[in-house]
Amino acid sequence: MKYISADARLALYAEGEFGKGRSKTAEGVMRYGQNPIAAVIDSTATGKTIKETVGIDCPAPIVASIKDSLAYKPNVLLLGTAPTGGRLPDSWRADIILAIENGLDIVSGLHDFLEDDPEIKAAASAHGKLLLDVRKAPEDLPIASGLAKKVKGFTVLTVGSDVSIGKMTTSLELLRSAEKRNLKAEFVATGQTGIMVTGGRGIAVDRVIGDFMAGAAEQMVLAADENCELIFVEGQGSLAHPGFSGVTLSLLHGSCPKAMILCHQPSRKLIGRLPDFPVLDLNRMIALNETMAALMQPAKVVGIALNTNGLNEEEARLAILTIEKEIGLPCIDPVRFGGDVLIDAILAARKNYLATTKQLVEH
Amino acid sequence: MKYISADARLALYAEGEFGKGRSKTAEGVMRYGQNPIAAVIDSTATGKTIKETVGIDCPAPIVASIKDSLAYKPNVLLLGTAPTGGRLPDSWRADIILAIENGLDIVSGLHDFLEDDPEIKAAASAHGKLLLDVRKAPEDLPIASGLAKKVKGFTVLTVGSDVSIGKMTTSLELLRSAEKRNLKAEFVATGQTGIMVTGGRGIAVDRVIGDFMAGAAEQMVLAADENCELIFVEGQGSLAHPGFSGVTLSLLHGSCPKAMILCHQPSRKLIGRLPDFPVLDLNRMIALNETMAALMQPAKVVGIALNTNGLNEEEARLAILTIEKEIGLPCIDPVRFGGDVLIDAILAARKNYLATTKQLVEH
Repeated sequence: MKYISADARLALYAEGEFGKGRSKTAEGVMRYGQNPIAAVIDSTATGKTIKETVGIDCPAPIVASIKDSLAYKPNVLLLGTAPTGGRLPDSWRADIILAIENGLDIVSGLHDFLEDDPEIKAAASAHGKLLLDVRKAPEDLPIASGLAKKVKGFTVLTVGSDVSIGKMTTSLELLRSAEKRNLKAEFVATGQTGIMVTGGRGIAVDRVIGDFMAGAAEQMVLAADENCELIFVEGQGSLAHPGFSGVTLSLLHGSCPKAMILCHQPSRKLIGRLPDFPVLDLNRMIALNETMAALMQPAKVVGIALNTNGLNEEEARLAILTIEKEIGLPCIDPVRFGGDVLIDAILAARKNYLATTKQLVEH
Repeated sequence: MKYISADARLALYAEGEFGKGRSKTAEGVMRYGQNPIAAVIDSTATGKTIKETVGIDCPAPIVASIKDSLAYKPNVLLLGTAPTGGRLPDSWRADIILAIENGLDIVSGLHDFLEDDPEIKAAASAHGKLLLDVRKAPEDLPIASGLAKKVKGFTVLTVGSDVSIGKMTTSLELLRSAEKRNLKAEFVATGQTGIMVTGGRGIAVDRVIGDFMAGAAEQMVLAADENCELIFVEGQGSLAHPGFSGVTLSLLHGSCPKAMILCHQPSRKLIGRLPDFPVLDLNRMIALNETMAALMQPAKVVGIALNTNGLNEEEARLAILTIEKEIGLPCIDPVRFGGDVLIDAILAARKNYLATTKQLVEH
């Protein structure tokens, strides 16, 4: 396994897409990654700052081309948008090769591996540059057998009323809040952006062969530090999405959470933008996740992470209060207001769990 | 895509495993496939007939080796057992190469592809023989979007209280019973044995990358004949199995069944032989499947296919009556007593569905 070295300067490639809803990889890496950002590349987004475009405090410039980015001394070109289906757009190839020729390693989260592209591979070999396909899963994954139930840490999985709704972001905000309280916590990356944020650690579960998806999640949870108190597993998809529900359930059954946080965005009306699939009533969504989780061990949704993107602060606070009242669970937008409310809910659930387990052991 | 020609004579390789619970591929091909069987190869099972060993009326002999099988003029060696995890056992390699050297094509349902094994590949090239890895999925599968809801045929998925419990067998028995009544019906193969039975048509959904599993099922259901009345989709795994539930749900959401048949075996106590996972109460299992199916469209479990393997006829009939009384659904062992009872239940559900749809259209 290759990793991204912690001091590598990243050029984030988001041509034509920065801040238009499809650059979540670039945004995630800026917000949560440890590497310095050299520049964002998008010829359609120059003239504004990153802060103005996506609301993230990052001093790097937005530039128009690979060539323009070189002035900011990047070491790595990171492909920061996610084309549907994860295929490599033909228009990217020339830019990737140009970056290689200018001395950059390439990091990609596409389903199509750069290593399988003859032109890109040849360029990388010729210039001695690395191609890191973070979605490439390890060989020899196990078939899950429910072992993750037994880890000592309190495993918390983020689940969602839709796809791309903030599950990774929520898990990472929970990690931050937990670390601020000096709790020993780990983040388990299960998608390409999460893996990039952690410098290359994790397994993109949606890229794993069906039979081994849950096994990948199980293996990662089992590998978490014995002494860690909280294990935050990045969720994927939604149980209600026709295309991705199998990935979601594999994660749920492979990671065996002891509690879940439901991620939701009030403005979403459709699941995966599919006209026939309205977002479910939240109580039904919670019941679905708890029903399926219970096949491994009882686990409740203990809080709601509300994605209030697009609302002003007053609207956001109102939306949070409304959900809290309707559903009767702690609710917050952890990106906007921090994850403390949710950590409190998780710690309460953990205390309860430990008390029950202790009772079971003593009797 | 390569297919098995309909007149190819098959040698079924089941070394050490024939009739011991792990030769379901060999048995499935014997029972439902269209190809003539030349011989079964298992040095530990010689001296008995196939009928005595697995109860299938097949006149082919059981022989001790590849060499011994040659007297029966096979054209194809079909790997007829399923090692855990689908890896190629080292001990098989020499036998496979010997078969190639003696003029046989090889058909395999392993996760490990024969084409990726340098020695086997070299032997096949040298002797001009075909390697057919039926588990190899096509490229460019779609992401499912619930389109299979809209097919004209009445889609029936087999689901299970456990893995390896008779889902493929039940779907194939239903196909037989439907065809006897001159109903236009199709079988959608989703696993390696099902694909072998159909001569190479179908997609092994459990071998597909997570994001595209449901898409594979959707694509196959959409490809079914517009005029077919019944579409029998071979189910996989179980929603309650920690390792395979994601595959199961992908099939359920990709194929969008309008009715389900639950496959069950009364003697099974554990899911996937896992000590912590007792087989669920059948009513809970039914509710689980109906809850998850309803996310696409309402679909009921309309009958139970009982695997009465190991029971004598009287015990089997009693077990069937007991389940029928307890659950209140039609129940039969379709292998032992034919699928008519279940076809009746499916046709009643179809009539009901068509009446409801018609009403909706008229209003």
